[in-house]
Amino acid sequence: MSGRAWGPGDWTGDPARDLGAPGKFPFTRGVYPAMYTERLWTMRQYAGFGTAEETNARFRHLLDAGQSGLSTAFDLPTQMGYDSDHPMAAGEVGRVGVAIDTVEDLHDLFRGIPLDRVSTSMTINATAGILLAMYVVVGEEQGVPRPRLQGTVQNDVLKEYIARGTYIYPAEPSLRLTVDLIRFVAEEGMNFNPISISGYHMREAGATAAQEVGFTLANALEYVGRAVRAGLAVNTIGPRLSFFFAAHNDLFEEVAKFRAARRLWARLARERFSADDQTCRLRFHTQTGGVTLQAQQPLNNVVRVTVQALAATLGGTQSLHTNGYDEALALPTAESATLALRTQQILGYESGLAGAVDPLAGSWYVEALTDRIEAEARAIIAEVDTLGGAVAAINGGWFQEAIARSAWELQQAQESGAQVVVGVNRFTDDRPVPAVVRPDYSALQQRQQARLEEVKARRDETAVHAGLRAVEAAALGTEPMMPPIIEAVRVRATLGEISDALRAAWGVYRAG
Amino acid sequence: MSGRAWGPGDWTGDPARDLGAPGKFPFTRGVYPAMYTERLWTMRQYAGFGTAEETNARFRHLLDAGQSGLSTAFDLPTQMGYDSDHPMAAGEVGRVGVAIDTVEDLHDLFRGIPLDRVSTSMTINATAGILLAMYVVVGEEQGVPRPRLQGTVQNDVLKEYIARGTYIYPAEPSLRLTVDLIRFVAEEGMNFNPISISGYHMREAGATAAQEVGFTLANALEYVGRAVRAGLAVNTIGPRLSFFFAAHNDLFEEVAKFRAARRLWARLARERFSADDQTCRLRFHTQTGGVTLQAQQPLNNVVRVTVQALAATLGGTQSLHTNGYDEALALPTAESATLALRTQQILGYESGLAGAVDPLAGSWYVEALTDRIEAEARAIIAEVDTLGGAVAAINGGWFQEAIARSAWELQQAQESGAQVVVGVNRFTDDRPVPAVVRPDYSALQQRQQARLEEVKARRDETAVHAGLRAVEAAALGTEPMMPPIIEAVRVRATLGEISDALRAAWGVYRAG
Repeated sequence: MSGRAWGPGDWTGDPARDLGAPGKFPFTRGVYPAMYTERLWTMRQYAGFGTAEETNARFRHLLDAGQSGLSTAFDLPTQMGYDSDHPMAAGEVGRVGVAIDTVEDLHDLFRGIPLDRVSTSMTINATAGILLAMYVVVGEEQGVPRPRLQGTVQNDVLKEYIARGTYIYPAEPSLRLTVDLIRFVAEEGMNFNPISISGYHMREAGATAAQEVGFTLANALEYVGRAVRAGLAVNTIGPRLSFFFAAHNDLFEEVAKFRAARRLWARLARERFSADDQTCRLRFHTQTGGVTLQAQQPLNNVVRVTVQALAATLGGTQSLHTNGYDEALALPTAESATLALRTQQILGYESGLAGAVDPLAGSWYVEALTDRIEAEARAIIAEVDTLGGAVAAINGGWFQEAIARSAWELQQAQESGAQVVVGVNRFTDDRPVPAVVRPDYSALQQRQQARLEEVKARRDETAVHAGLRAVEAAALGTEPMMPPIIEAVRVRATLGEISDALRAAWGVYRAG
Repeated sequence: MSGRAWGPGDWTGDPARDLGAPGKFPFTRGVYPAMYTERLWTMRQYAGFGTAEETNARFRHLLDAGQSGLSTAFDLPTQMGYDSDHPMAAGEVGRVGVAIDTVEDLHDLFRGIPLDRVSTSMTINATAGILLAMYVVVGEEQGVPRPRLQGTVQNDVLKEYIARGTYIYPAEPSLRLTVDLIRFVAEEGMNFNPISISGYHMREAGATAAQEVGFTLANALEYVGRAVRAGLAVNTIGPRLSFFFAAHNDLFEEVAKFRAARRLWARLARERFSADDQTCRLRFHTQTGGVTLQAQQPLNNVVRVTVQALAATLGGTQSLHTNGYDEALALPTAESATLALRTQQILGYESGLAGAVDPLAGSWYVEALTDRIEAEARAIIAEVDTLGGAVAAINGGWFQEAIARSAWELQQAQESGAQVVVGVNRFTDDRPVPAVVRPDYSALQQRQQARLEEVKARRDETAVHAGLRAVEAAALGTEPMMPPIIEAVRVRATLGEISDALRAAWGVYRAG
């Protein structure tokens, strides 16, 4: 849609059918009737680095600064099912997130933060069951019953095979665990989203806005289909599905993307599963676009993040992480993370955007863009259908190739200068990119290993052994997985040990 | 308009009548058909401090950084008609803008910047005629003929009496000079806006968005009425009128304000002067809101400025100054001024907003807000009419009192916390407000005085004396004022001397 003016003739939609009222099907205008006029989105900054103790300090700082929800970044070993003393963990302990080996670390992470008072999002996928089990056990040991725990586990392995890479097991058993988490949360009556179906990482890898919607909803259809085939009622699990999208720079395209995603999910859930309104409501978290941040002239990123945060909130997000301006260089400092939070607060409290629900509704340009993205995403889903669904499309490399093509086009546009990147391919200067002092990761790893040894020294090895055998047995059978995982966590089995038990039962996935 | 959803029933306007096409009456959607899809707004950072040489270095820095127009801040003595060696100038030389005593200083200001290659805005009012004369003479001496000079002089004295305070003479003779500038620019065929009718300072003083529009257009009607009564054809001067508004934090109200201002001006000019389309086109410069900047947590201001810049560009501004994040503390540094410019560049080149003309058009919320602001501003203008026009309303203190009431309400809202100001009345921290190193203004004043003495020592005192007598004689008579002022400037009469000649003829204004 190249530059021009959009007028009344450019949108032929029917407001009642295609928009509806906020809080009503098809939810184009938002999932709640009053949206931010009643309550702002949850300001949820993704944070995690080093040890649980260090991340706990950052959590407390952000809560003191007015953050309204927690979001945990885990290091790669934790995401990949390796303890901090595993050879595969070398150099990675505490680097891109917090290191968690046992439930004692999760206790440290939430020290002084009662789990009935905060909602916590955990970006964890192949090991989501273990982290959810640890969260349940920390809750128990803090005295908080399961129904009072609130939060989200990402638990979206499909996009790991497509774009993000922290998978462990083959798709089929991994999806069985995914569905088990969904079942567990429903059966326990937890106020928890057992999955966050994520377009973010596919977008970061180079997908377009329409692909982000199409691929994410194709994965969602796969999850819901499997859950339903596993005997779960769509309207039992539907209300607890959550989604996760990126917010990139193109303000109106992004707003339209969020609106289109809501409408298309509502229609698909209704068409394919005869879902009720609660299941048709697409609730989502947003993170501003990591790949849009530039190392050059880093404060320029404050501007980009502001525009992206505006896109997310004008698009009706339920929660938001705004990136720190220095994240193209390193993990955000306390100062940059605070400024990122202030960005949300200024939008929420000073910009007036909370004064109207879906303020762009009716704009001929935004409505036409919304229609376009919905149509493109629907065409993508139709193609996935012809391939046999998301798992088949992943196994055939179809998503991956489509993203690679889009990424290549984006890269060409930036290299040719057709897509300006301020401070990078235009408006450059000769100021050096700021140097970053990196933590001493080997010392960090030693501290974390000492902590792990200390926990192991105090535990009942017989109970651990029994717990791990029970996990493996469940994996080889058909019974629900969460109860034995919780029991293993409770007796201080490690994340690596539990993952190994599952590896023994299921094997590992190797990318084609 | 408190928080809710706006739907199709909330806007009863007629798109053809109330919006029209971009570039067509009533210009609600912008003054050019293709707007930014063809050419971005002019990025014009207001800059000026110290001597002309120092400001010249900043100008060159900003041009190198991609700025597309110049905008000059003058110090208070220059704005008030005092030379740098006048007792009234003590402590103020070069403080809030550049010090200009003679045309030699203006030469220094534009050293290496050919005046046929750049457009220059000058924020100057009571002494606008002298600065425009100097600009013409610098052009002559650079070899640039008058028709090739491009720019704007603010030359809006009415708002000086209302809010800004840099008036010198009583309103009647001062307005005669205003009209003389308008005539001069028209007769010389200069590509120059001889007036920039400014709501900015009234808004800064506490006016609401609707008052900003109403008061500014009331003043515009006064200027045009006087010009027409002085024998100028409305459609000769109309196309060169320009306007100047603020962009504050309330994103959609601000966008609606700009759209309402365009539509209301088009309608008023047509109703009252039977003006043609060119005269009905309201072109405007925008500056982000100085009073919205906070000294606490200064980088938060980058976020505010981004939102405000977005409001200005979504509102269709022709040029824009974005404030530096440190301007609540001191004049912007080169670094903060560059980041402010980068803010515009990111919006222009990365945010996609240049991809559609008036992208919010049709939004029920924005159209309803536009209607509301137009109606409120029209009611204000009707009240000014009953008071006998803008000059009579100013003399009766009416504008001033209305602004004081609005300012008081705003202050109450902030003190009570009903209006959140992030980092000030909420989300505060205990980090100290950064200390600012202030220049040594007395040394600066001495350098500037030495420069003035040097120019005076080289000039022809007889010619200066004759030039000043000619200015005074013109002021006492009825002939056009610009020719004798230009002649006086050319022989290096100072700004203070020329102002004194006018003071002798006209006396000075004392606020009621």
